[in-house]
Amino acid sequence: MTKAEAGGLPPEQALDPEDWPAFRKLAHAMLDDMIDYQSGVGERKVWRPIPPAVRQSLHEPPPRAPQNLGLVYERFRTLVLPYPTGNIHPRFFGWVHGAGTASGMLAELLAAAMNSNLGGRDHMAVEVERQVVGWWREIFGLPESASGLLTSGSAMANLTALAVARAAKAPVDVRQQGVAAAPERLIAYASSEVHGSVPKAMGVLGLGEAALRRVPVDAALRLDVAALKAAIAADRAAGCRPFCVIATAGTVKSGAIDDLATLGALCQAEDLWFHVDGAFGALAILSPRLKPLLEGIEQASSLAFDFHKWLNVPYGAGCLLVRDGKAHRQAFASTESYLGRASRGAAGGGDWFWDFGIELSRPFRALKVWFAMKEYGLDRFGRLVEQNCAQAHYLADLVAADPHLELLAPVNLNIVCFRYRAGGMTPEALDAVNQEIILDLHEQGIAVPSGVAIAGRQGIRAALVNHRTRRADLKALAEAVVRLGAAALGKPAL
Amino acid sequence: MTKAEAGGLPPEQALDPEDWPAFRKLAHAMLDDMIDYQSGVGERKVWRPIPPAVRQSLHEPPPRAPQNLGLVYERFRTLVLPYPTGNIHPRFFGWVHGAGTASGMLAELLAAAMNSNLGGRDHMAVEVERQVVGWWREIFGLPESASGLLTSGSAMANLTALAVARAAKAPVDVRQQGVAAAPERLIAYASSEVHGSVPKAMGVLGLGEAALRRVPVDAALRLDVAALKAAIAADRAAGCRPFCVIATAGTVKSGAIDDLATLGALCQAEDLWFHVDGAFGALAILSPRLKPLLEGIEQASSLAFDFHKWLNVPYGAGCLLVRDGKAHRQAFASTESYLGRASRGAAGGGDWFWDFGIELSRPFRALKVWFAMKEYGLDRFGRLVEQNCAQAHYLADLVAADPHLELLAPVNLNIVCFRYRAGGMTPEALDAVNQEIILDLHEQGIAVPSGVAIAGRQGIRAALVNHRTRRADLKALAEAVVRLGAAALGKPAL
Repeated sequence: MTKAEAGGLPPEQALDPEDWPAFRKLAHAMLDDMIDYQSGVGERKVWRPIPPAVRQSLHEPPPRAPQNLGLVYERFRTLVLPYPTGNIHPRFFGWVHGAGTASGMLAELLAAAMNSNLGGRDHMAVEVERQVVGWWREIFGLPESASGLLTSGSAMANLTALAVARAAKAPVDVRQQGVAAAPERLIAYASSEVHGSVPKAMGVLGLGEAALRRVPVDAALRLDVAALKAAIAADRAAGCRPFCVIATAGTVKSGAIDDLATLGALCQAEDLWFHVDGAFGALAILSPRLKPLLEGIEQASSLAFDFHKWLNVPYGAGCLLVRDGKAHRQAFASTESYLGRASRGAAGGGDWFWDFGIELSRPFRALKVWFAMKEYGLDRFGRLVEQNCAQAHYLADLVAADPHLELLAPVNLNIVCFRYRAGGMTPEALDAVNQEIILDLHEQGIAVPSGVAIAGRQGIRAALVNHRTRRADLKALAEAVVRLGAAALGKPAL
Repeated sequence: MTKAEAGGLPPEQALDPEDWPAFRKLAHAMLDDMIDYQSGVGERKVWRPIPPAVRQSLHEPPPRAPQNLGLVYERFRTLVLPYPTGNIHPRFFGWVHGAGTASGMLAELLAAAMNSNLGGRDHMAVEVERQVVGWWREIFGLPESASGLLTSGSAMANLTALAVARAAKAPVDVRQQGVAAAPERLIAYASSEVHGSVPKAMGVLGLGEAALRRVPVDAALRLDVAALKAAIAADRAAGCRPFCVIATAGTVKSGAIDDLATLGALCQAEDLWFHVDGAFGALAILSPRLKPLLEGIEQASSLAFDFHKWLNVPYGAGCLLVRDGKAHRQAFASTESYLGRASRGAAGGGDWFWDFGIELSRPFRALKVWFAMKEYGLDRFGRLVEQNCAQAHYLADLVAADPHLELLAPVNLNIVCFRYRAGGMTPEALDAVNQEIILDLHEQGIAVPSGVAIAGRQGIRAALVNHRTRRADLKALAEAVVRLGAAALGKPAL
């Protein structure tokens, strides 16, 4: 009987392993499995449908009783691991998903061991995030007074950026008083190709999705600057208050990059916030050959981009940079007494990231970025960007050379929108065939492109940010599309 | 010369290790180090100041050239790892930080190997998140039609919840038209003890922080229901539109739990959204003894809580549950063509999490929660909650028994607010002494409580969600406070 028990105090128990050596052994076995899983990915199918029995197996009541960790792992290994998104596979080309790396997996292990919370306080994880933010500030040519923070991805970075833009450009204190206190309606502008996270952010911010003007694009699918100017003038004339232009550096559909230099100058002249959504395209800055496409990005008032795409770190890690660090802080800083900052001790450390965003609990996303940047070096990522863009042109050439295939949009950067074609079919029937091809590619585990609608027609879209993809994978994709297209023509349902 | 090179095509290179066996060896060494780091945490200081030279060492230009992974790891091991937040240590009691577990670290490794994106699509990671959400829906007694998703933490869950509340209760389509389109100002209510993430969310949502009424608390630091009723009536009389009450289940300062049953009934009667911020306190549901404190939580329209606190999974994992799943989806669903849902294939899988929140890129947060729930079982977490609450009373007893210490607030759940006291001092001087004690505790690596202001006075706050904490650690804290207090009295600066 312990002293505590003798004194009537309850026994105390931690969640630590009772048997550390056994835990260690299991941990090493898991690590070996995961390294095998990564190194052998190309030998598996890219994606597999979840069998109904597997899906059903998760329908179980909340676990009241404990279970051996080895058994839990076994359940994960047999039920979850075999049915992934697919994006670590060389033939995954869907939705601009990065593949991740084996090193990134280790960085996540290290981050979880430290289990840091980067909402604030004084510890090295915060310094690492500051360093990562500072590096990207420098890479994009923003001034030293710029601020930034890591987010789960560009959707969060876009929302955070527009909150800062709103606070900086509204004539009233919207944070305190709300947007209804603004005498004129606040209006933002983006091209019709803008990512869905931007209208969503406008809705969340209480500005309304309707307050985002979708400006037409030119033939190259870039925001039409003349149309933008006309829209701004019309809104001003109607008594609205234009406050922000959202340029896209790499549209999701086609990879088009808006004319950043012209838009930056226009925003300067019109006193508008210039936000750049560079989710994947901004990383082209790392390629000396492609960097000119991003000319003007250094004028951005704010910039959102992802690390889990072209930097291929594990999900999720995006970044927001804000030129005017004071405006950024002003939009979010708070002073709860229980979060009192100190000059020394664990509560010190200067500005807290909580003062620059929405999250107070913030994981150590920066570590995997820090590892990737150091291990590979930025030049290597520049070459990866070029490699994927060259692969996109290679795929486009395959498409152009095959009479059964056609391109649906010019190839910008790393995105190829194409489709199967066949004579004597209605547009609807051809759409159905292309839809069927995509589903067959997925279900047979050949490749995962995504579907895309271009000018109302069903297309097949390959977005290449995957470091494991080889030209042979793209050749396999093109050949499979032709083969499955021919097969789909014969299906009775189509 | 490869065929590609012969054909003028650039060589292709992946980010995979060139030498997998060497990579594997390094990975196992890292894993051993991290297990040692976790198992030996109690032998180290809880927190250490970052030496200026270490902080300075990160001031280096963006890395252009690659560096051996082993060297990057060595830099991490010597510069970052020794200066953590401190929360994995048994004597960390600050800011309601969970300690994490060694198993949780492995779950993060597994998640990073899969590198899933849970924005949507059809893969088992999504099913795991659905299972986790369903389990907690059941635990909290919400109906089967309720929805939910995992977030980085309660700050994000609170924001998401209030966006749903706003959409559900506004008489106009605020998502499309903005909050300015509402004919009356939308008003929310919370107690003066509400967490800072709630006013921040009101600001982000464009409702304005001023549209959050801070209702006074009663002697037990719980929202004063009579004052709430009066505030609602006054706002209605003034032409405003009350739409939401935010109750707190476990305030950050003192752990107080608002009267959820009464507030739930009031919201029902007044047609208001009833949001419960249960960041840490909601987990008391797992203890049969403490569960009655949460009576009424099953009436919540929405509920936010964290897994990285009392479930002790690694950062960050919080959860939002919404009673009316349709209202939840309505507030966020979108239909971008490039995200077109499919009936089969990788783009299938029913509802996407992207349709229920702000993030499109979403990491596999659910896996660590799934592992923790299965490995430990919910009953074990119920005992941990009770253990921490018993420890809080143990510390309070130590405080009460020592003439140099005093309690500043009643002990609710797991939080103890106390301070050093000494005769013949001005209140300001005593505040300074207590501030100094906290800093000394941190800097000497003895313990990390946080500071707290209670009724304008500086206090010391211990928040216990840490599974590694023992009564001996709390005894050490109390003794050190007395010792450092006496020492601080003699410091010339005070």
